[in-house]
Amino acid sequence: MFLIDCGEGTQDRLKSFDVKWNRINQIFISHLHGDHIFGLPGLLSTFHLNHRERKLQIITPIGLKEPLQLLLNTAGEKLSFEIEWIELNHVGALKVWENERIEVVAVPLDHRISTYGYIFQEKEHPRKILVDELSKFPQLNHHQLRSLKKGESVTLEDGVVVPNEWVTEKQLQTRSYAYWSDTRFHAEYASFLTGITVLYHEATFLHALQEKAIMTYHSTAKEAAELAQICEVGTLLVGHYSSRYASILDHEKEAKEVFPNSIAVEEGQSFRIS
Amino acid sequence: MFLIDCGEGTQDRLKSFDVKWNRINQIFISHLHGDHIFGLPGLLSTFHLNHRERKLQIITPIGLKEPLQLLLNTAGEKLSFEIEWIELNHVGALKVWENERIEVVAVPLDHRISTYGYIFQEKEHPRKILVDELSKFPQLNHHQLRSLKKGESVTLEDGVVVPNEWVTEKQLQTRSYAYWSDTRFHAEYASFLTGITVLYHEATFLHALQEKAIMTYHSTAKEAAELAQICEVGTLLVGHYSSRYASILDHEKEAKEVFPNSIAVEEGQSFRIS
Repeated sequence: MFLIDCGEGTQDRLKSFDVKWNRINQIFISHLHGDHIFGLPGLLSTFHLNHRERKLQIITPIGLKEPLQLLLNTAGEKLSFEIEWIELNHVGALKVWENERIEVVAVPLDHRISTYGYIFQEKEHPRKILVDELSKFPQLNHHQLRSLKKGESVTLEDGVVVPNEWVTEKQLQTRSYAYWSDTRFHAEYASFLTGITVLYHEATFLHALQEKAIMTYHSTAKEAAELAQICEVGTLLVGHYSSRYASILDHEKEAKEVFPNSIAVEEGQSFRIS
Repeated sequence: MFLIDCGEGTQDRLKSFDVKWNRINQIFISHLHGDHIFGLPGLLSTFHLNHRERKLQIITPIGLKEPLQLLLNTAGEKLSFEIEWIELNHVGALKVWENERIEVVAVPLDHRISTYGYIFQEKEHPRKILVDELSKFPQLNHHQLRSLKKGESVTLEDGVVVPNEWVTEKQLQTRSYAYWSDTRFHAEYASFLTGITVLYHEATFLHALQEKAIMTYHSTAKEAAELAQICEVGTLLVGHYSSRYASILDHEKEAKEVFPNSIAVEEGQSFRIS
């Protein structure tokens, strides 16, 4: 489970939305403005108070480590877990993290301070489960399902073999998720984002305030949708709205006019990437 | 308007409870544990984003200035207002702030790290308004009321003089508020707290866990009430409950058994000090 950015109150939201936060082992930070990092001291302290032992990786633009550690040290306690800092200071796209199944690429964005967008890309093409066929073998357990997704055949407890091709089929596309905030609009981002399954793109403003967006290094809902269209992404999620807007209906409307599969997201929602 | 301590989410609570936070010019910090300071970066950033210009005074145990300023500097912006740091590192009771009407004394408390309790003490004995008499002069304005409280007589617009003694009487006691958190119980605090109008005292535990309270440098509801009784305070407020307690009814019951005028406080409540 990845956490991307950590504004003030993140630990409260994780509790409210019943997220199993012990499973967070990586935190990706886009940039060092307060609304993206001021929840870190509290979240890390709570990890500590809950006696976390597993290492935590923080992937972030350079400059966060010293102030955060200094603030955590004010209480004079040594954290119960290790933090591995992966500090970014590169131009161009760079793979900054990976495990067996996923790799993460960080791309510099055009904001007021050093900012990175993150692309989470599935490596393999896991086999797609054929749900109807699978229901014929209710005795399959979680581990066997995983083996089937990898393309392996499995043997049931009674010795019966389930050949992989009986219950799965080839999946054409790997899945991917891109987090693109905060940034000005650039059509050139298409070189990184084409074919992305789900793109989250900031839409601080409606297009009537495009000049303000440019001035403050932000984007409009229409611009986000234009990028989604150019990139032929699967789904566009827009967010990071200016507090001047009382409702987000106009953001969704503006985006849908350009790219129909757009959703203006609200706090606490979840989306399947597929 | 004073703010005392500033845990994560304080700015959200101030908004929810409709507090006019622009009027906060002093923040008093008891100690540097995260649950008392991690709301500062966000609150100060919001002051900045709202173009605050008035100086802010932060009264705090030594050690907060550097990490907080470093974290605020990560975004690379200079704050729109000045912070005056009043850093505490003393033993015994010391006056750390005052204006014309109020003085604030900081007293070291017995907690795991350097911690101060704060006593807010009214300086003057303002005259007590006789509400029934006052109602005979509905034309009195806010400024005239203030003059009456100071003991002055006022002249109405039609030339009629309202002698001070017609509508006020002498008030015997000045009002005071003490904030006593986090700390172990000590009867010796009575030398500072006797006669306090409203005492807020932490009650992290119920008395059944007194040993745990001593070990972790906290207090029980019963102990807080004992101190209130020794000091003959007006009202005791207890708070800062351990998250192990699902309800605070037992804290109030335990305190009331020793000191009847005890209240176990909840988020968002307000109390008159009188």
